[in-house]
Amino acid sequence: MTAELSGPVLCAPPALLWEPLLRRALREDLGRAGDRTSDAVLPAGAQAQGAIVARAAGTVAGLGISAAAFRVLDPSARVEFRRADGDRVAAGTTLALVRGEARALLSAERTCLNLLGRLCGIATATRALVDAIEGTGARIVCTRKTTPGLRLLEKYAVRCGGGENHRFGLDDAVLIKDNHVAFAGGVRPAVERARAHVGHMVKIELEVDSPAQLEEALDLGVDVILLDNMKPAGLREAVTLVAGRAVLEASGGITLASARAIAETGVDLLSVGWITHSAPALDVAFDLEPSR
Amino acid sequence: MTAELSGPVLCAPPALLWEPLLRRALREDLGRAGDRTSDAVLPAGAQAQGAIVARAAGTVAGLGISAAAFRVLDPSARVEFRRADGDRVAAGTTLALVRGEARALLSAERTCLNLLGRLCGIATATRALVDAIEGTGARIVCTRKTTPGLRLLEKYAVRCGGGENHRFGLDDAVLIKDNHVAFAGGVRPAVERARAHVGHMVKIELEVDSPAQLEEALDLGVDVILLDNMKPAGLREAVTLVAGRAVLEASGGITLASARAIAETGVDLLSVGWITHSAPALDVAFDLEPSR
Amino acid sequence: MTAELSGPVLCAPPALLWEPLLRRALREDLGRAGDRTSDAVLPAGAQAQGAIVARAAGTVAGLGISAAAFRVLDPSARVEFRRADGDRVAAGTTLALVRGEARALLSAERTCLNLLGRLCGIATATRALVDAIEGTGARIVCTRKTTPGLRLLEKYAVRCGGGENHRFGLDDAVLIKDNHVAFAGGVRPAVERARAHVGHMVKIELEVDSPAQLEEALDLGVDVILLDNMKPAGLREAVTLVAGRAVLEASGGITLASARAIAETGVDLLSVGWITHSAPALDVAFDLEPSR
Amino acid sequence: MTAELSGPVLCAPPALLWEPLLRRALREDLGRAGDRTSDAVLPAGAQAQGAIVARAAGTVAGLGISAAAFRVLDPSARVEFRRADGDRVAAGTTLALVRGEARALLSAERTCLNLLGRLCGIATATRALVDAIEGTGARIVCTRKTTPGLRLLEKYAVRCGGGENHRFGLDDAVLIKDNHVAFAGGVRPAVERARAHVGHMVKIELEVDSPAQLEEALDLGVDVILLDNMKPAGLREAVTLVAGRAVLEASGGITLASARAIAETGVDLLSVGWITHSAPALDVAFDLEPSR
Amino acid sequence: MTAELSGPVLCAPPALLWEPLLRRALREDLGRAGDRTSDAVLPAGAQAQGAIVARAAGTVAGLGISAAAFRVLDPSARVEFRRADGDRVAAGTTLALVRGEARALLSAERTCLNLLGRLCGIATATRALVDAIEGTGARIVCTRKTTPGLRLLEKYAVRCGGGENHRFGLDDAVLIKDNHVAFAGGVRPAVERARAHVGHMVKIELEVDSPAQLEEALDLGVDVILLDNMKPAGLREAVTLVAGRAVLEASGGITLASARAIAETGVDLLSVGWITHSAPALDVAFDLEPSR
Amino acid sequence: MTAELSGPVLCAPPALLWEPLLRRALREDLGRAGDRTSDAVLPAGAQAQGAIVARAAGTVAGLGISAAAFRVLDPSARVEFRRADGDRVAAGTTLALVRGEARALLSAERTCLNLLGRLCGIATATRALVDAIEGTGARIVCTRKTTPGLRLLEKYAVRCGGGENHRFGLDDAVLIKDNHVAFAGGVRPAVERARAHVGHMVKIELEVDSPAQLEEALDLGVDVILLDNMKPAGLREAVTLVAGRAVLEASGGITLASARAIAETGVDLLSVGWITHSAPALDVAFDLEPSR
Repeated sequence: MTAELSGPVLCAPPALLWEPLLRRALREDLGRAGDRTSDAVLPAGAQAQGAIVARAAGTVAGLGISAAAFRVLDPSARVEFRRADGDRVAAGTTLALVRGEARALLSAERTCLNLLGRLCGIATATRALVDAIEGTGARIVCTRKTTPGLRLLEKYAVRCGGGENHRFGLDDAVLIKDNHVAFAGGVRPAVERARAHVGHMVKIELEVDSPAQLEEALDLGVDVILLDNMKPAGLREAVTLVAGRAVLEASGGITLASARAIAETGVDLLSVGWITHSAPALDVAFDLEPSR
Repeated sequence: MTAELSGPVLCAPPALLWEPLLRRALREDLGRAGDRTSDAVLPAGAQAQGAIVARAAGTVAGLGISAAAFRVLDPSARVEFRRADGDRVAAGTTLALVRGEARALLSAERTCLNLLGRLCGIATATRALVDAIEGTGARIVCTRKTTPGLRLLEKYAVRCGGGENHRFGLDDAVLIKDNHVAFAGGVRPAVERARAHVGHMVKIELEVDSPAQLEEALDLGVDVILLDNMKPAGLREAVTLVAGRAVLEASGGITLASARAIAETGVDLLSVGWITHSAPALDVAFDLEPSR
Repeated sequence: MTAELSGPVLCAPPALLWEPLLRRALREDLGRAGDRTSDAVLPAGAQAQGAIVARAAGTVAGLGISAAAFRVLDPSARVEFRRADGDRVAAGTTLALVRGEARALLSAERTCLNLLGRLCGIATATRALVDAIEGTGARIVCTRKTTPGLRLLEKYAVRCGGGENHRFGLDDAVLIKDNHVAFAGGVRPAVERARAHVGHMVKIELEVDSPAQLEEALDLGVDVILLDNMKPAGLREAVTLVAGRAVLEASGGITLASARAIAETGVDLLSVGWITHSAPALDVAFDLEPSR
Repeated sequence: MTAELSGPVLCAPPALLWEPLLRRALREDLGRAGDRTSDAVLPAGAQAQGAIVARAAGTVAGLGISAAAFRVLDPSARVEFRRADGDRVAAGTTLALVRGEARALLSAERTCLNLLGRLCGIATATRALVDAIEGTGARIVCTRKTTPGLRLLEKYAVRCGGGENHRFGLDDAVLIKDNHVAFAGGVRPAVERARAHVGHMVKIELEVDSPAQLEEALDLGVDVILLDNMKPAGLREAVTLVAGRAVLEASGGITLASARAIAETGVDLLSVGWITHSAPALDVAFDLEPSR
Repeated sequence: MTAELSGPVLCAPPALLWEPLLRRALREDLGRAGDRTSDAVLPAGAQAQGAIVARAAGTVAGLGISAAAFRVLDPSARVEFRRADGDRVAAGTTLALVRGEARALLSAERTCLNLLGRLCGIATATRALVDAIEGTGARIVCTRKTTPGLRLLEKYAVRCGGGENHRFGLDDAVLIKDNHVAFAGGVRPAVERARAHVGHMVKIELEVDSPAQLEEALDLGVDVILLDNMKPAGLREAVTLVAGRAVLEASGGITLASARAIAETGVDLLSVGWITHSAPALDVAFDLEPSR
Repeated sequence: MTAELSGPVLCAPPALLWEPLLRRALREDLGRAGDRTSDAVLPAGAQAQGAIVARAAGTVAGLGISAAAFRVLDPSARVEFRRADGDRVAAGTTLALVRGEARALLSAERTCLNLLGRLCGIATATRALVDAIEGTGARIVCTRKTTPGLRLLEKYAVRCGGGENHRFGLDDAVLIKDNHVAFAGGVRPAVERARAHVGHMVKIELEVDSPAQLEEALDLGVDVILLDNMKPAGLREAVTLVAGRAVLEASGGITLASARAIAETGVDLLSVGWITHSAPALDVAFDLEPSR
C-alpha cells in the first residue's frame, strides 16, 4: 500500500517526452565525427561492463532516464538497476550495472553522468530541505527557475527528493504578481479578469504585499496566496488571518538554515528556486571494466 | 589593440547555433496555452520597459543571447545594452534595458533570466578561479561536464569568465584515459592507434598515472598530458621531468582554495568540472515598469 | 473597458506556438516541387490582390493566423484586416485584403483557407451553442476531442465563439473517470492519491455516476464534478444537492436542441465534444484579381 | 483475386510517413507533465485490456495507424485487429482489442480515438456518396480541402471509403483555374505554358466556364476538364460534346442528395470537398477493463 | 514574351522548401564551436565584400539559393546579382557581389560554394547534353538518381541547364518496371491494377523489353513507354511502331557521345542519371577583400 | 592484429548520427503518397529477396548504412553482408543480400543505391589516389568541399578508400588562409591571436605563399603548413627548408596523373577536393527476385 502510494509520486515521465532531449545530448557530445578516441583505440566488437556509482551520499533521480543513453548507442546493451529513483544512497553505492559494446559504453558515459549528476543533485538538495522541515506539515515546492530544456526532468527530480511541483509553465495555472496588478490597476480587477478568462480548470494564485492585499485576496477567493520575502513574524500573522481559507505559499531566499523557522509559521508551502537553478551536481561515476 | 585582442575571446556564437535552443526554452515555458496570466490580465497592446539587473556581483555572460528571448516573442522589442559579456559588475548593476509589448516582456522574462543566471554563474565561478591563479602562468580550462543541451553556451560562458575551453565533444580531439589504455593493452599501442587513425589535424592527450607512464608519454610525443588527482608535490616533479616537452594539465577536485597551489607547481592548465556542472546561478532580475 | 475585457478572451496565441504548424501545412501542399501550375503559368514578378471572404454567415476565428500563410511565402505581402477574431459576420463579408506576389498568393491560398474554414467552423458552432443558452448563467466548454496537431488553435477558436476551454491536455488538471476509480478501488482512494501527488496548483475533477458518489465527491472536496449522460431531472437534483459547493459540469450528447434545457438545470458548464471534432467548416474563399 | 485487387486500394501509407504526426499528437496531449491523473491514481505496473469499439455504424479507416498510439507509449502493448480498413461496420462493433500497461492505454486513448474518429468519419461520408452513385460509372474523388497536417491520412481515409484521390498537393499535377487563365491572358497560353514547363509525367487539368472554353480545352488536348458549379443539363451537354476525348470532372456543392443526378449525366468524376473538411467524426470509444 | 516564357522554366523553388537544408548545411560546417579561425583572427565588426566567381565556363544554377547562406549568418548582408540561373558563363565571370560582416562572409563561404558548385555542375552537364541533341526535337530528362537530401535543388539545376524533370519521387507518377510486371504476373495485370488504383491525375509509364510488350503497352494506352538499354536501331523501330500513340523515353548509359544518335531515332525523351549523380562540380570561388 | 588496426580506420559512425539523414532521404523519395506503383501493383504481403551488386569495380563504402534503408521501411527485413566497407571489389560482385517485404524493398531501393553509389564513388576515387602514391610516405586527405548534409558520411567514405580526414568543419581546427592574414595585418598577429584564443586542444594550420612566410610559420611553431598551388620544385624546397619541423600539406588541382610527382617531393599530405565534390558515383544495382 505504501509502495503503491509512493509509486505514483515518482512515476517517471514517458520516454516519448525525454528521448529527443537524450538524443540531442548524445549528438552534442558525439559531434560530427563521433568518439574518435574510442573508435581508434578500442578493438572492434569488444564488450564491457560498468557500474554507475554514487561517489557521494545523496538521493537518486533520473537513473533509468540517464542510463537509457547507453541503449541509444547500443540497443542490445543491458542495464540492471540496483537502486531506484527516490532512494537515499551512501557514498560508494552502485546504482546500476551496464553491459554492452565497449565503444558504446565509453561514448555514452559522459552524457549519462552529466544528466544523472544534475538530477541527483536536485533531488539531494530537495531532500535536505524536506528533511529540515519534517513534522511541520509544510511542503517544499519548486519554481520555474529551471535549466532551459530540462524543466520536465528537473521537476521530476524535485519529486524524487520528496518535494512537490509548482507550475510547469506559464499555461497551467495563473500566478498574478505585482507587475500584473500594476497593469490591471489593482488586485481586484486583476483577479476578476483572470477568473473571467482562464476557465474552470485553472487555479489562481496571487502574490500579496500587505495585510490589506491579503484581506482582499481572501475576499476574492483566490486558491493560493504567495507571500514573498516576508519574515517569520509576518508569515505567522498571515497564517492566523487566513485561517485555512486559502493555501499559503512562502518564498524568497529560503535556505537550509532558515527553512524550518519558516515552515513552523504554519504556511503550507515553501517554494525554493535554488534547488533547481543552483544545486551542485551529485558526484556520480561510471566504473568500466572489460568483460571477461 | 587590447580591445581587438579581447574581442575574439568573447566572440559570441552565431544565432544560427543557439536560436533553436532559445525557441525550445520559450516553448517549454509557454506550453500549449501560452502565458495565461498575462494574456488575461494585461490590457491588449500595452507597452512596457524593463531593466535586466544583476542583484549580486559577478561576471556577465550570454547577455545578448538571453535578451534575444524578448525579441522572439515581440520582434519589434528593442534592447539597449549597458554592459557586455565578460564585464565584472557590482550588485545592483543594470545590464540592459528592454522596451516592447508588456505581454511579450512578461512572457519571456523567466526564460531570459534562467539562461542568463546560469551563464553568468558559470562566468563568475570561472573568473574567481582565474583571479585565484593570476600571475602563475597557468590557465583555467573547462571540461565536458556540462548541462545536456547547453554545452555551446556554457563553454562560451567559461570564456567570458577568462577561462579557456577544453574539448567541445568526443570528436574534436583525442583524450586517452585509463579505460582506453586497458583495452588497447598499454599506453604505446593506444597512442599509436590513435595517431594512425585520427588524422593530422587532431591533438592527442594522454592521462598518465605514474612517472613511468609519463616518460612513455613524452617518448610517444603526445601533445598534452593529463595528470589526474595528483598532489602538488607530484605535479611539481612532473613539471620538472617534462621540461616543456608537452602541455601539462592537472585535474581532479580543484577548488578555489587549492587552485593557486596547484597552479604554482608550474602546470600549464587546471581543468575544472564544477564551474560548469555546479556553479550556482547568478541572481539576476527583470524590473518592469509600464511605459509612460 | 469592455474592449479591454473582451481583448484578453481572444488574445491569440503567440506566433512561436503556431508558426511551425503553418509551415508544415504549407510544405504539405507545396510538396517537393512547389506550385507547378502557378510557377509555369504566371508571369514572373506579377503582383495581385485578393480578398478573404466569408461565403456563409458565421463567427471569425484564426484570421490573423491563417493569413500569415501568405507572408510565409512572400514576406513582403501585406494584409489589411476588415474583421477580427470573435466577430459575427454575414455571408459575403470581406474579412481581409491581401496584396503581394501573385504566385505566393495563389500558392498559399488553399492552406490559408483550410485553416481558416476549420477554425471559423468551430467558432460558429460554439457561438450557436452559447447563444442557445444565453441568460441561463451556464457556459459552454470544449473537450480534448480535437484534431491531432491543432489543439492549440481549435481551443482558441472555441474562445472566439464565446466558449471556454476545459483541459488543454492530460497534464494541466486532473480528471478522474470511471476507469481510474475502478483501478484505484473506489472514489475515495482515487481522489486522495490524486490530491497527494499532483501539487497545490492543479484542480481535481471527478466523474460521478450516482447520488452516492456525488455525496462522496462533495465530502472529498473536489473542485469540479462531471455528470456524464445524465437527464435534466437528474442534473437538477444534483444542482440542488451540491448547492454551490463544487462546479458542476454536464456532458454527453449535448446538441443545439438540448443545450438550453440542460443549461436551465443550473449546472455551471456544458462540455461539448462535437464543436471541435465534428463542426462543419465555414465556407471561406479567396477572391483574387491582378493588381492594376 | 478480388482480395488482391482490393488490397492495393487500401494499402496503408508506411509508418515512416505518419509516425512523426502520431508522436506530435501524443505529445500535444501529454504536455510537459504527462498524464497526471493516471500517473497519480493507477497502481504502478498495472496491466489492462480494452476494446476499440464503433458506437455508430460506419466505414473503418486508419485503424492500424490510430492503434499504433498505444504502442508508442508501451512498446510491449499488443493489438489484435477484428476489423480492417475499408470494412463497413454496424454500431457496437469491436474493431480491435488492446492489451498493455494500464497507464499507457489510458494515456494514449484520446489520441487514438481523435485520429480514428476523424478518419472513419471521412471514410463513412465517402462511402455514402460512393453508394449513392453506384452503377453510374462515375467515381467520387476528394480535393485539397483537408485538415492542415493530416492530408496523407485523410486521402487514405477517402480510399478506405471507396473514393479516389485527386492531387495530393500543388506539385503532383497541374490544375489551371480561372485565375491562372486570367494571368496568362487566355486558356491557350495558359495550357501551352504549362505543357512547355512541367514535363511529360504530369497531367494537366483545366477548369472551363463555357462551351467555347470546353472546345478550346479539347483542342489543346488537356487530360482532364473541370466543370465547376454546372447544372446537370450543362454537364450532360458537356459529356456529349467531349465524347470521351477527355476525363470530365464535376465539382461544386455536391451533396448526398444531388450526387446521383450529377453522376447520371455521364461525367467521370465528382469531386467533393466536404468529405474531408466537414464530415462529422464517427463515434468511436475505448472500453477498458483491468486485466485479470 | 520570350522572357516571360523562359521565366517559369527557371522559377526557383520557394525558400520555405530549401531554407532548412541551407541551415543544416551551415550548422554542419560550423559544428558546435563555430568558425574558430575567423572568430579568433578577424577584428570584431570588420566589414568586407567579395565576389562569387565562376573559375570555369558553365551554366549557372542555384545562385540565389546558395548566396542566401551569407544572409543566414548576417541578415544585413547584401547580395548583388550579376548573372542569373540558366545563364551560360565564361571562366572568370563574376556571378554576384556580396557585402557584409567579414566573419559571416568567411564562415558561410564554403557552404555557399559547395552548394553552388554542385548545382552549376549539374546544370553545365545537362546543358552539354541539351546542346548535343539540339534540333532533333528530343528532350533531356533527369531521373531519381539524385543526392540524398538535395533532390529538389538538383531537379531545379537540371531545369537551369535546359533539361526537364522526370518524377520527383515514387508518389507523383507510376513507373512500372520489370520487377513490378513479374510480381503482377504480366504487363496487362500490372497496368490494369495501376490504373484502377492511382486515380485520374497520375500518369502511367511502362518499361518494355520486347516488341510484343510494346504492342501490349500501346493496347493498354499507357502514357509513356520506357525503352531501356536499347540500340538506336531498336529505338527507331519502336518509334515507327508507336507512331505518336505514346511518349517514348530512351534510357541506359546515354553519354555525351551517344546522345545525338539516340535523339535522332525520333524518341521523345532521353533520360540520363549521371547528370545528377556524377556530374563534376563547377569550379566556383569567393574572392574576398576587406571593405574600404 | 592487422585486422584490429584496420578496424578502427573504418569504424562506421553510430546510427544516431546518420539515421535522421536516411529517414529524410526516404521521405524525399516517398513524398506524401508513398510508392504508388508498388502499392498498386504488388500483391499485399509478398516477400522478396534481392542482391546489392557492384556493376563496376571499386571500393566499398557505406554498405551497412545504405542497406539500413530497407529496414526503415520493413523492420523485419534481413540483410546478409558479403563484403565490408573498405573492400575492393570487381565488377559483378554481390555486396549484400536482402530479404523482406517486396513493397518495402522496391520502395527503399533507390534511396539505398543513391547513397551507396555516391559513397562507393568517393571511396573508389580516394583509393585510386592512395594507390598512385603508394610507397611515397605521403597520405591523401579530403577537404570541406563536401555535399551539403552528407559531410559525415563522405568523410567516412574517404577513410574507406584509404584516405584520411582533414577538418570536419570550421570548429575543430584552425586554418589560417590568406584572407585571415590580410585582416589580421600579417602572419604573426594572425597566428598569435589564434593561439591566444582557441585553447590547447586545437591544432593550427597556416597557408603560406612564399619562402619568407614559410620561415615565419616555422618560427611561430604552427602545427601544419599548407602549400597551395605550388609546383613540385617549390614543394621540394619547402620540404628541405622545413626539415620535419612541421607537417606539410600540398593542395590545389591535384589529379590522379600529378599526385605521385607531388607525393615524391616529400610533403606529408596531399589534400584533394574532387574526391568528395566530383567523384562519379559507382554503378551499383539491386537485383530483385520474388521469394520462393
